[in-house]
Amino acid sequence: MDASELDDLVAWWETANYLTVAQIYLQENPLLREPLAPAHIKPRLLGHWGTSPGLNLVYAQLNRLIRRTDAAVLNITGPGHGGPAIVANTYMEGTWSEVYPEVGRDLDGLRRLVRQFSTPGGIPSHVSVPVPGSIHEGGELGYALVHAFGAAFDNPDLIVACTVGDGEAETGPLEGSWKGVRFLDPRRDGAVLPILHLNENKISGPTVLGRVPDEEVHALLRAHGWAPAEVAGDDPREVHALFASALDAAYDEIRAIQQVARAGAHAGGRSGSGLPRWPAIVLRTPKGWSGPKVVDGKPVEGTFRAHQVPLPNVRENPEHLAQLEAWMRGYRPQARFDEHGRLIPELAALSPRGDRRLGSTPYANGGRLLRDLDLPDYGRYAVDVPGPAATRAESTRRLGELLRDLYARTETTRDFRLFCPDETNSNRLGAVFEVSERELEEARPEDEKIGPGGRVMEVLSEHLCQGWLEGYLLTGRHGMFATYEAFAMVSASMAIQHTKWLEGARRLAWRAPVSSLNVLLTSTCWRNDHNGFSHQGPGLIDTMISMSGDVVRVYLPPDANCLLSVADHCLRSRDYVNLIVIDKQPQLQYLGLDAARAHCAAGAGTWGWAGTEGGAADGAREPDVVLACIGDVPSLETVAAAWLLRRHVPELRVRVVNVVDLLALTPPPLHPHSMSDERFVELFGTEVDVVTAFHGYARALHQVLHGRPNAARFHVHGFNEQGTTTTPFDMVVLNEMSRYHLVLDALRRARRVPAGAAALERLCATQLTRHRAYVREHLEDMPEIRDWVWSD
Amino acid sequence: MDASELDDLVAWWETANYLTVAQIYLQENPLLREPLAPAHIKPRLLGHWGTSPGLNLVYAQLNRLIRRTDAAVLNITGPGHGGPAIVANTYMEGTWSEVYPEVGRDLDGLRRLVRQFSTPGGIPSHVSVPVPGSIHEGGELGYALVHAFGAAFDNPDLIVACTVGDGEAETGPLEGSWKGVRFLDPRRDGAVLPILHLNENKISGPTVLGRVPDEEVHALLRAHGWAPAEVAGDDPREVHALFASALDAAYDEIRAIQQVARAGAHAGGRSGSGLPRWPAIVLRTPKGWSGPKVVDGKPVEGTFRAHQVPLPNVRENPEHLAQLEAWMRGYRPQARFDEHGRLIPELAALSPRGDRRLGSTPYANGGRLLRDLDLPDYGRYAVDVPGPAATRAESTRRLGELLRDLYARTETTRDFRLFCPDETNSNRLGAVFEVSERELEEARPEDEKIGPGGRVMEVLSEHLCQGWLEGYLLTGRHGMFATYEAFAMVSASMAIQHTKWLEGARRLAWRAPVSSLNVLLTSTCWRNDHNGFSHQGPGLIDTMISMSGDVVRVYLPPDANCLLSVADHCLRSRDYVNLIVIDKQPQLQYLGLDAARAHCAAGAGTWGWAGTEGGAADGAREPDVVLACIGDVPSLETVAAAWLLRRHVPELRVRVVNVVDLLALTPPPLHPHSMSDERFVELFGTEVDVVTAFHGYARALHQVLHGRPNAARFHVHGFNEQGTTTTPFDMVVLNEMSRYHLVLDALRRARRVPAGAAALERLCATQLTRHRAYVREHLEDMPEIRDWVWSD
Repeated sequence: MDASELDDLVAWWETANYLTVAQIYLQENPLLREPLAPAHIKPRLLGHWGTSPGLNLVYAQLNRLIRRTDAAVLNITGPGHGGPAIVANTYMEGTWSEVYPEVGRDLDGLRRLVRQFSTPGGIPSHVSVPVPGSIHEGGELGYALVHAFGAAFDNPDLIVACTVGDGEAETGPLEGSWKGVRFLDPRRDGAVLPILHLNENKISGPTVLGRVPDEEVHALLRAHGWAPAEVAGDDPREVHALFASALDAAYDEIRAIQQVARAGAHAGGRSGSGLPRWPAIVLRTPKGWSGPKVVDGKPVEGTFRAHQVPLPNVRENPEHLAQLEAWMRGYRPQARFDEHGRLIPELAALSPRGDRRLGSTPYANGGRLLRDLDLPDYGRYAVDVPGPAATRAESTRRLGELLRDLYARTETTRDFRLFCPDETNSNRLGAVFEVSERELEEARPEDEKIGPGGRVMEVLSEHLCQGWLEGYLLTGRHGMFATYEAFAMVSASMAIQHTKWLEGARRLAWRAPVSSLNVLLTSTCWRNDHNGFSHQGPGLIDTMISMSGDVVRVYLPPDANCLLSVADHCLRSRDYVNLIVIDKQPQLQYLGLDAARAHCAAGAGTWGWAGTEGGAADGAREPDVVLACIGDVPSLETVAAAWLLRRHVPELRVRVVNVVDLLALTPPPLHPHSMSDERFVELFGTEVDVVTAFHGYARALHQVLHGRPNAARFHVHGFNEQGTTTTPFDMVVLNEMSRYHLVLDALRRARRVPAGAAALERLCATQLTRHRAYVREHLEDMPEIRDWVWSD
Repeated sequence: MDASELDDLVAWWETANYLTVAQIYLQENPLLREPLAPAHIKPRLLGHWGTSPGLNLVYAQLNRLIRRTDAAVLNITGPGHGGPAIVANTYMEGTWSEVYPEVGRDLDGLRRLVRQFSTPGGIPSHVSVPVPGSIHEGGELGYALVHAFGAAFDNPDLIVACTVGDGEAETGPLEGSWKGVRFLDPRRDGAVLPILHLNENKISGPTVLGRVPDEEVHALLRAHGWAPAEVAGDDPREVHALFASALDAAYDEIRAIQQVARAGAHAGGRSGSGLPRWPAIVLRTPKGWSGPKVVDGKPVEGTFRAHQVPLPNVRENPEHLAQLEAWMRGYRPQARFDEHGRLIPELAALSPRGDRRLGSTPYANGGRLLRDLDLPDYGRYAVDVPGPAATRAESTRRLGELLRDLYARTETTRDFRLFCPDETNSNRLGAVFEVSERELEEARPEDEKIGPGGRVMEVLSEHLCQGWLEGYLLTGRHGMFATYEAFAMVSASMAIQHTKWLEGARRLAWRAPVSSLNVLLTSTCWRNDHNGFSHQGPGLIDTMISMSGDVVRVYLPPDANCLLSVADHCLRSRDYVNLIVIDKQPQLQYLGLDAARAHCAAGAGTWGWAGTEGGAADGAREPDVVLACIGDVPSLETVAAAWLLRRHVPELRVRVVNVVDLLALTPPPLHPHSMSDERFVELFGTEVDVVTAFHGYARALHQVLHGRPNAARFHVHGFNEQGTTTTPFDMVVLNEMSRYHLVLDALRRARRVPAGAAALERLCATQLTRHRAYVREHLEDMPEIRDWVWSD
């Protein structure tokens, strides 16, 4: 690299540093054309300087790499609050002004640029949805690297540069992400280039990796399968030169690995296994590099004191003000911008062109790349239902067949993947293995359905599964995350953050819609009878129903054909987080294909065959009691309860309503799916009591129903945090959602006491007593462990 | 080690293997005194054989170590479902029968032992609460090692052996846990001895570490700061001999490190930094070791097929049955038990004695070691409140002073720690640093408040903070986890699992109560105005209120003195998960010490000074409207709204009710704190509308209130997933919880229209319009960014 190229890198870096500091401090005088005065300073100083010079260096260097190689590069910024740095760079390359024309490339634009930063009505201090070129929010730390891998999968031409701060490096999810390289196929996936940025300090003290000897940091990356190169120093020219060499070498190595692999053989380099060892860079620069060295007699540069605002009292303290001015002028703003406040052409030329710019790559605005999924007609996988509640099937197995054909249809487009923590087979989705293997680079001949190039992703980590999928979706592809219901809470926080991302993205016209995050919760609380209490928890429903209705949908299909209909809808949808809850065990089937299609489209409906009203409810006349059910096991118990009522108290008018689309129950206008109050009354009446069986935590349903006509008449039976190692039927008894509990509640709540009620009550009580005895004496008798279905 | 000692190890191991298999398969004939018949086999075969032989080896070896050294050892079993192995060992050592006398040490007891396993009414298939000697549930994977560290902190004599499976090793939290060694003080903490058990397979395929070359596994542990020793093989005697040497060497090294450190110097060994490198063991044995090698022509031992039940069809398939019998008889049950079914004395003698047994160590039943905290009188830290809503203070700062003195008082007992992801100072709890430093082994002279031996735990990982605390509590100590409200969701799943653990433990009389898990949520949604939307989320409340009321409490103190009272109560409590929610920013103070004490004891009360009724509400006469508030910012807005109403429509009778103890609102008998309906009516009336301001997600409150008299009259304003980078006041406006929104709602809901209502409505509308204009024009005007408090 010649000296002028190095000059260019440093010039870009200094300018970006300048704009970073300007955003943190200034509300006026953005180019210091006047002497700096207290009135130019924002009243409240927010922002994170410490990490920013490192991010600016990376950006400048990636720009050079792209110009040199014309590579497609996606930049993921882990260090949470390095927002002003990335904003500065996207402004310099022009993308910020293209996306936000009011922030133009002139003096007025610069004034708006600095004023908008971390200020009311402006933009957050961290990298976030409004930042072009980002698919990653730098708020909750831990997911940078897992998002990077998700972006790289099936994007063979892409290089994902991912800066990981040594703060984030302390989180569990980040530490778990390094192993992503074991799942990266050099033939068909792109590359991830981690840049572990060690500035050795967090908000108020040292980081763990900052205190670990160099050789241990490198050993850690090597042990995870990487080949790290070190770049360290505090002299800008020196560090830029070193980094440029390291980056060039990394790029060459990436291309070499890919070329060898794509020519039909894996490259050597990995000891023992013969797999490639991908390059990584360890960047060690002072925290707050090139900022104030000492403030009020205390060292700042290179310490935790540089984390946020290194000169805190600029408005009040003239010495701080002078220090700030000297610091900023040191970056020579007058030399970087012309008289109109426009970046000088020599600097502007250092940015790549068009969509190769990091801020405008379509990979960071995945909707631009998104193609509709070539979905097969889901009717092809339908269960034949000769009559309601007559046959049983494993509902998720049918979905597995649909996914299998989806894999086949996306064999060349490679834009769909299933992610699952080690349970694809267990969740009855194993049909996919007829078409695709599980991805693992270090496969052996004796393995079953495992190998490089596989597109089924299994790793025993909900964080990795969900994070990979998020990265995959945000770069314009499709997918599904299937997991145990209880352990879905492991990555609940990621679901929240992804929901918030989508909420933000929907407000920005320039962000094209992306495919929805589809989460299939199976192995549910009601059927984790054999695993016990720690495996029984439907809490993700609680988490998601509080999130924005613009984004969140919750579906509880009662059977296979409804699941197919719901899944088809979810896989076609955009910008949602779809929760689909259904168990994997054999279960009764209720609706034929057409009925299921209509039922799911409506979101909820009366099951005339299960109640006493037959085909059509009499709108003018409310039944004596309504039985409502939401979810597969609740539907089973409700249908059985209605059958008991029909048989034993035939004169009681009973209506059965099944709900698939949970949030359709939310009163309008709270959710786009909210059914009208008229429709609600059609289904549930206005005065009649509604004995409701709900899959999730019983009381959570009340927060959905509040505001509906006479909502207090809904009596919800649901999961009540009662569980143990037991039988499926005992689970519904323990939680008082069994058919007998529902019958007893229906008789208690019904508008009249039918003939036979007392006898039926006795019957139910007897059954429950027998059941309790059965459980109590079980260890002595050891009768068959069986699933009590629909019998009295 | 001589041959007879090796014989003993193998004999114990084979016997434990036998009992493991017996639990998985048998319901009768536990010692195979008859030929094995289908009727002896359980009707449903559940359990995990694959990991069990390794766990049995570890147990046998730890027994020997304890007998040899009299060391106090706690055994933590990460591999989730290895329950039958640990149960077998505790049975053999006698603790199972001591805890559960019905499962005696004879033939009948053996029959009960095998029947109870993973069967309805019995025990789960994974290591769980009922297993003596365990502080760790093997259900949700990822927390074994973090629990081990929590147990070791401040237990200088303890060695925590922690088996980590290669499945669990794939999770993010586990990968993040290795670094715990950087926080372990050899002078004052015990030791953690990780045993990374690589059997190379999970449920249906290879593990990542199982496929990584040996040297990379070792490099990974070395890079994390450990000195791993390898034990590998498939010949039992050979592996036992190797493991015994490795374990002896590890023990000697642990004691050497501790002796040197406790003599006043750190031991050498760590390259570069001079810190000790703690021993670890990598154990590589075949999955399902010593089980069937081939079943139905397919290899089983050493493959994923050995994960659960290696012979699946024993009842139906005579060949499988014969294979099972041969397998079991290979362990020679007839030689291990006497004619009464009692373990032969030679084997029984291999177990340690009394509380040195792994199943009966008090460290695994921490309540037995628990001492009451020597809490200072919290009144000492009270804020002086000359009158309600007259002064402001940072409430958490007062708590920090209490914690400081708690640190001082526990200087010698060392049984309290604060855990916080890097935010102790930011959360205004920094007073603790006057007494204790942050623990970090690799400290430097220039560091502030950081060093070995510190008891304030900061690491940028919610998983580590919470997991360490859980381990610390379950071994009989006290503590608090303070974290950002939004990012508390990162470890929400751990909070759920800990709650479930406590629910289970409360039902077992032999488990002595432990100190509560106290979670302080600060930096709340309402005051993360500057950070923006990703930092705004009160979701942990939603998660916790669905959990069991026997364990969960949620407190929202409105000010400093209430916080002190609540914290004092929580720190004294046992077996709870206490959520305390309060922001860290300067906030209005309402109650003097005595008033706060009484208010918190009651859980909720009328604030006469804020409403129109003065000192005492007139029980007989309902006000025109009730304003209820729950949380600090809601209290501020409610008090301001009441003030506006008093000033502008003085004839309107307004009552202000503040709620500290959220679940007191739950109708009885759902929560032990549920206030009676009489008390509820005293506070909220029966007919009057209640305009409620709630800290959390607005609609979540309805699930708490459902079932209270006329619950539909509660109109809740709360967090509504509206947020951005803005001002604190704009946050309450965006979520329609501002004083003006509350006033408008109160006027709309009040039982009569007072004189002046229209004018006040106009005033509110004007203020909101002005506010919207303020926000819209903000970037142009840049007025002071300020916190609008109590003014119109």
